[in-house]
Amino acid sequence: MASASSSLTLSQALLSRRCSPLPSDHVSLPFPRLRASPTTLRRLVSVRASAATDVELVDKSVNTIRFLAIDAVEKAKSGHPGLPMGCAPMGHILFDEVIKYNPKNPYWFNRDRFILSAGHGCMLHYALLHLAGYDSVREEDLNNFRQWESRTPGHPENFETPGVEVTTGPLGQGIANAVGLALAEKHLAARFNKPDYEIVDHYTYAILGDGCQMEGIANEACSLAGHWGLGKLIAFYDDNHISIDGDTEIAFTENVETRFEGLGWHVIWVKNGNTGYDDIRAAIKEAKAVKDKPTLIKITTTIGFGSPNKANSYSVHGSALGEKEVDATRKNLGWPYGPFHVPEDVKSHWSRHIPQGAAFESEWNAKFADYEKKYPQEAAELKSIVTVNLPNGWEKSLPTYTPESPADATRNLSQQCLNALAKVLPGFLGGSADLASSNMTLLKMFGDFQKNAPEERNLRFGVREHSMGAICNGITCHSPGLIPYCATFFVFTDYMRAAIRLSALSQAGVIYVMTHDSIGLGEDGPTHQPIEHIASFRAMPNILMLRPADGTETAGAYKVAVENRKRPSILALSRQKLPHLPGTSIEGVEKGGYVISDNSRGNKPDVILMGTGSELEIAAKAGEKLREEGRAVRVVSLVSWELFDEQSQEYKESVLPSEVSARVSIEAGSTFGWEKMVGSKGKAIGVDSFGASAPADVLYKKFGLTVDAVVAAAKDLC
Amino acid sequence: MASASSSLTLSQALLSRRCSPLPSDHVSLPFPRLRASPTTLRRLVSVRASAATDVELVDKSVNTIRFLAIDAVEKAKSGHPGLPMGCAPMGHILFDEVIKYNPKNPYWFNRDRFILSAGHGCMLHYALLHLAGYDSVREEDLNNFRQWESRTPGHPENFETPGVEVTTGPLGQGIANAVGLALAEKHLAARFNKPDYEIVDHYTYAILGDGCQMEGIANEACSLAGHWGLGKLIAFYDDNHISIDGDTEIAFTENVETRFEGLGWHVIWVKNGNTGYDDIRAAIKEAKAVKDKPTLIKITTTIGFGSPNKANSYSVHGSALGEKEVDATRKNLGWPYGPFHVPEDVKSHWSRHIPQGAAFESEWNAKFADYEKKYPQEAAELKSIVTVNLPNGWEKSLPTYTPESPADATRNLSQQCLNALAKVLPGFLGGSADLASSNMTLLKMFGDFQKNAPEERNLRFGVREHSMGAICNGITCHSPGLIPYCATFFVFTDYMRAAIRLSALSQAGVIYVMTHDSIGLGEDGPTHQPIEHIASFRAMPNILMLRPADGTETAGAYKVAVENRKRPSILALSRQKLPHLPGTSIEGVEKGGYVISDNSRGNKPDVILMGTGSELEIAAKAGEKLREEGRAVRVVSLVSWELFDEQSQEYKESVLPSEVSARVSIEAGSTFGWEKMVGSKGKAIGVDSFGASAPADVLYKKFGLTVDAVVAAAKDLC
Repeated sequence: MASASSSLTLSQALLSRRCSPLPSDHVSLPFPRLRASPTTLRRLVSVRASAATDVELVDKSVNTIRFLAIDAVEKAKSGHPGLPMGCAPMGHILFDEVIKYNPKNPYWFNRDRFILSAGHGCMLHYALLHLAGYDSVREEDLNNFRQWESRTPGHPENFETPGVEVTTGPLGQGIANAVGLALAEKHLAARFNKPDYEIVDHYTYAILGDGCQMEGIANEACSLAGHWGLGKLIAFYDDNHISIDGDTEIAFTENVETRFEGLGWHVIWVKNGNTGYDDIRAAIKEAKAVKDKPTLIKITTTIGFGSPNKANSYSVHGSALGEKEVDATRKNLGWPYGPFHVPEDVKSHWSRHIPQGAAFESEWNAKFADYEKKYPQEAAELKSIVTVNLPNGWEKSLPTYTPESPADATRNLSQQCLNALAKVLPGFLGGSADLASSNMTLLKMFGDFQKNAPEERNLRFGVREHSMGAICNGITCHSPGLIPYCATFFVFTDYMRAAIRLSALSQAGVIYVMTHDSIGLGEDGPTHQPIEHIASFRAMPNILMLRPADGTETAGAYKVAVENRKRPSILALSRQKLPHLPGTSIEGVEKGGYVISDNSRGNKPDVILMGTGSELEIAAKAGEKLREEGRAVRVVSLVSWELFDEQSQEYKESVLPSEVSARVSIEAGSTFGWEKMVGSKGKAIGVDSFGASAPADVLYKKFGLTVDAVVAAAKDLC
Repeated sequence: MASASSSLTLSQALLSRRCSPLPSDHVSLPFPRLRASPTTLRRLVSVRASAATDVELVDKSVNTIRFLAIDAVEKAKSGHPGLPMGCAPMGHILFDEVIKYNPKNPYWFNRDRFILSAGHGCMLHYALLHLAGYDSVREEDLNNFRQWESRTPGHPENFETPGVEVTTGPLGQGIANAVGLALAEKHLAARFNKPDYEIVDHYTYAILGDGCQMEGIANEACSLAGHWGLGKLIAFYDDNHISIDGDTEIAFTENVETRFEGLGWHVIWVKNGNTGYDDIRAAIKEAKAVKDKPTLIKITTTIGFGSPNKANSYSVHGSALGEKEVDATRKNLGWPYGPFHVPEDVKSHWSRHIPQGAAFESEWNAKFADYEKKYPQEAAELKSIVTVNLPNGWEKSLPTYTPESPADATRNLSQQCLNALAKVLPGFLGGSADLASSNMTLLKMFGDFQKNAPEERNLRFGVREHSMGAICNGITCHSPGLIPYCATFFVFTDYMRAAIRLSALSQAGVIYVMTHDSIGLGEDGPTHQPIEHIASFRAMPNILMLRPADGTETAGAYKVAVENRKRPSILALSRQKLPHLPGTSIEGVEKGGYVISDNSRGNKPDVILMGTGSELEIAAKAGEKLREEGRAVRVVSLVSWELFDEQSQEYKESVLPSEVSARVSIEAGSTFGWEKMVGSKGKAIGVDSFGASAPADVLYKKFGLTVDAVVAAAKDLC
């Protein structure tokens, strides 16, 4: 506990100064108005210290956690009791003795972060939040485990349960999120701490199981954590030897410790995770002492500990124990209480966390108030990261273009936007999966975020797309004003789709910069050419799929992406040069679909041509050609279907009047879904097979993505 | 070379017996009619042995490889010269001295397999195939590198270039494919070899770079390779310290050797991969001597070796050298020849591979002929695996159902099919990513494929979805009669999408058994509930997305999946029980969409109700209800859109007459794309947001997936 008490000592000194609460207009108030006197703090610290000594009470608390999990799963007749029963000891020690948090403000900025990467064991986390006094998990919530509209869903969801930092369940994601959270801490600490003020100073803890360990994403993320030297990341590997299919002997016999040593981690093995409380405490102390490496505490436990007939077997992994076995477990562990009961002494023991948490926060607030006086500029910047408020007029920094601007690839125009945004958004940072010079994602005014340069903002993810996405989810979940972007070739969203989906589900506004967005990338061939990807993201809920056509639309796409802090955005960008088109606009992009040119009257064009991204140019040229032949032609950019869907019926009708059935679309990707826009009688031009290896201009001709093809299709229809 | 000569000794003994060619009706004839006399073989072996000694000639051959790569990339003005220049020495030794192959029959069954996992360096492979005498890579093909319809695309594609085993480029895939190939060898060897006949006996070699090493999929696959003890897998790790973004110091500083030791591999480090030919040879010898572990040969090379100004830098990774630097490299390496030139002595040296390869194959054919006499049953079985022919009447093994059969989840019905197929298809094998008991994928008559039980057919992948898919791609690319299936929850296709896409692109008929296919899985909640997944695969080229509604349709889906050996299939299966519906049929499934019930006349129903999978029951019930109210209702199953698309216009019109615009669809997933089926005036009922954690029946009601909703929508329309 060395670190915790030293920060308290500091705080006590600070508390003698006058401290005032900070204004905030964010719903999840990170700076509440609680204060604690030095005496209160001292008393709290002493309770904290003595807690470690009363083994009987710890046993009782640990069994409380076990039975809350057992009872909730039993009542739901669904869930995973095994992990909470095995991990209750480490869970107790973490939440009762180690982790700094404020139950009444789960969003307090400087809290330690805890991630249950083995999300199926969420009853462990819910039980701990309940004991700690979080309002999000009351007894009725435990009773409603896994039920409609409950705050205790089947896997931890940050958007349902305050106190849950990220959404886990899909294995391996949580540990990668934890790497992102630890990265965010290291970065902000480097930028904002001063020799006399450790204003950013917290740990990130994670529990992961055998399943997480097997997933490739976990290895990717842990390789980066080792590379970055994330010393304040402490991961508990619940080594219980059981996965859903049985003993891990059947599929997982590698030496995890050796692997993690190779990844540059400090590794500790606690051999008795079931009752070795002091060993667990000692391991955490050792982990904290290692400052330059993340630590893996391999902690051998018995899954379903306490269940006389099911412990140490796969049958306790993912099913309720059943009434008979619940009774037997109660007998075996000497638990005389009914379902969901928290014994008074356990309740009383945990009750100190509410004032203690308030004191932690109050102490920090005092420190921050002082910091603010001394370092007003840094404090203002940090506040803009801690809250969700974007600086006034930030969007004015975005570059502007005219049709006379030189033609350029949207990936290059994207780089101009990224660099403009980095100047005005203090929480803007990101990078690429080893394609920075192809994705054009380097921030020129910053260096690389590295072990010894954590204040920098260019993240070098290496060829690790999946963990890149999940790390960015962690970064954005750390503080609402952190806005991470990440990049690779669009086709390789396939490698990171599970992380992108979790951005969407968990309302993490990550910006995905996806270049080389069609067969237009040319010679690399079909392994590198996205076809179905645009459609696949249009079908995904709560994500914006943006495919800008030129500089103005690229700027517009970034405006939308930055503003959407609860919804991730994917920008599909071209490798090839594109002209700046007359008629494109940022306002148009914000509506998702809009008219870029029209020579018709009365909302009755002869034909409507639609395009996105690099094909909008083709649609525009075809429009010109048809107009030369006397047709009334409307050309529409459909840069984001999601935004267009959200417009009023009236607006949509003004762009795509239902009366006009002569509609042609062109997009260098699957035509799947385009019936929605072109209707049953229209024609969608696209690519419904895999691409090929050849120069881009050859491919466009061979695959029929031409002005002539659009003109011919239009003439067929009108 | 110990192993090579011992097998030759065996073959010489065998050659004294009478050997006859085998009949075959497979296009890629694995048993051609070449033979070699013992004298020829002895001469060839002696050339082979002496090859290792003439350093000057090896240098020249190595430089030939380098310049073929340099010249092809230069001509295409696109490509990756750096890897071939650095890996030419190991490439030369592998193809000239180590690997057993027959250039004139790239599909010879018992060949060693070579995978360039770092696929961007494909000019290395093309140059080697060219020197070795493969017809697929002639001089004109090198000249046409990366051009339209050439056999030398920008990344290696098995379907374009005989001699290329699998399609690589997306990093990490190739090494995972190699694990699949090595698994297939170990499995077939265990099943078919006899004490006196090593009829299956080859190595699998792979070259992977830093990029592959960073990808999570590679760690997953290599963990499995270590677990399975794939001793005949030898992977060369091209340790050149450069990736696209620069020195690997910026993102990749882990200790790879230590990690691989943790994964259970034998690890060798060749410190001079540029000129240390004997070290490379010794490493391969050592690797072959280790029988119970796969070997990683870390081989330190200089990327772009020979380029005076660009070697050892990222600038040589992914761009042509440029005319000036090509000239400088020619001078630096003392290469007086023009572009694409193969010096006569190099040509002459390599020329022996054509007769040698023929001799290898002939020898094996003789051995096989003998084996066939002694073990006719095993030989017949092996032949059915080596060729693509399915046993006569195999489909009769599929279970049959009637509407009276007890209601069951399609995942359970799927297990009945899997077990039926395993009895009749000798090449049928597969497993789950740690969800065998949920996906219902265990083959009851077989045990687990393990290090010491490689003859078994249940594969235990652990929680490693991505490598599972890629390993299955490797298995099916090993022999056309191997039919692998693999399983997880449908939502976790997100983890393995890059591998699934490569199944589709590389025409690998893997069967993806994806259960828990909708919000119908219930309490696990939105992290586990697929929404956009069906649509996302419908948009992908060359893959069958099948969502069967009951037992008959499940059997039909398997019939289709097994028959489609050049196209992967995804079966989306329910967790929840479903009734067997009147009107479903295997023939219907084969057409992708068909009428299951209809009370209309003259192809003019009042309304058409459509559904797939678990919602077909709802459509059918709604149909009954509407008919009770006097409507003429057609109910259509749209089990596979791809198969339906392939039907004649006439057939499609007979199912979905264009005149009938009153159409309602119901599917528990995104409605994206359904406009194609319901038309502009129809109504698609589905789920366009993320799901929730609650019992399945509650979710179906809350999300409006009900008979009443279908009835109401139908009434609105007609």
